[in-house]
Amino acid sequence: MSTYEIAVLGNGRVGGSLATALTRAGHRVTTADRTPGAAASAARTARIVINATPGAGSPQRLGALREELRGKILVDVSNATTDGPDGLPAGLLHPGSSLAELLQEALPETHVVKTLNTMLYPVMTAPATLTHPPTAFLSGENPQAKQTVREILTDLGWKNEWITDLGGIRTARATEAAILFVPHVIRSRGFEPFAISLSR
Amino acid sequence: MSTYEIAVLGNGRVGGSLATALTRAGHRVTTADRTPGAAASAARTARIVINATPGAGSPQRLGALREELRGKILVDVSNATTDGPDGLPAGLLHPGSSLAELLQEALPETHVVKTLNTMLYPVMTAPATLTHPPTAFLSGENPQAKQTVREILTDLGWKNEWITDLGGIRTARATEAAILFVPHVIRSRGFEPFAISLSR
Repeated sequence: MSTYEIAVLGNGRVGGSLATALTRAGHRVTTADRTPGAAASAARTARIVINATPGAGSPQRLGALREELRGKILVDVSNATTDGPDGLPAGLLHPGSSLAELLQEALPETHVVKTLNTMLYPVMTAPATLTHPPTAFLSGENPQAKQTVREILTDLGWKNEWITDLGGIRTARATEAAILFVPHVIRSRGFEPFAISLSR
Repeated sequence: MSTYEIAVLGNGRVGGSLATALTRAGHRVTTADRTPGAAASAARTARIVINATPGAGSPQRLGALREELRGKILVDVSNATTDGPDGLPAGLLHPGSSLAELLQEALPETHVVKTLNTMLYPVMTAPATLTHPPTAFLSGENPQAKQTVREILTDLGWKNEWITDLGGIRTARATEAAILFVPHVIRSRGFEPFAISLSR
């Protein structure tokens, strides 16, 4: 197992739970809240940066870190949605495109890898607790970056056969659209861990 | 088990395999190809009509059967997509809406139920052959119509716990967007049966 310097941007439930699990797995993890300069400072020394900030503001927020993210892997686990009156996601902010594509365009010298955006956050760090194995999808242009993210997922409890490499960054359109299931599943079944997965 | 008069519109692989399986389950099944009047004639005596025609033309094709479909259940298993150069679905024809919603608007006196549109067609009639149970989602306004469709799914081999009622017809936006996974999964894994499902 390799040990990486990882910066987690966003200290909400998603960022917090990822940071805890990655630290426990032995990585050197820095977290950043939204205070000025925190993200830049955390990203500067990291090799891998995880975007766990709200997706709507991510292109602007991460676009400002172009220097800090140069040559690095940006793992984007967020979703860009419009919210309904109940606070649950109601629609896609970039239909016909995806947040991951926008990030890759804004950061051409960074390897963007989209993953873990098709599940409620508790599943990200505890996939084995579901009755049937969930799927973690990978989207990104750089095979080596995806291989590194696969390692990180393994550290989080993901078995290799639960990880499906969908292809280039454009395939994030599919996984980002899976957010459309979330409000309906929560309304019909309550807030219980689930993942939109591949049954084969 | 109830026996129903079922009309299957569309005699491609999807319609053909559904018609065969429903006949085997003891239902009285009529199929319709695209010759003039065939769909109207098949729909007239049926209680349940299954739309397995290409989704792009479905609103026009089914809108013309308003009289024949009055008071009946229309089970829509199709997807409305734009196709890529390789013939695989590339995008959604109605982003921000769904084919099922358009059909329900065009046929206000018909109970539209969307289902089985989140999988390759062999899974529709053989869900138990997958390694992990797939999910069949239901979207529709009428609870009784959804209950009848649940019965029909059971006849096709679906266990009750594999069926998730997502809510009203608007929830078909989520399941129709699952088609975006299809080309990428096929490219990365070949044409093997799969379903986009709920892991819990």
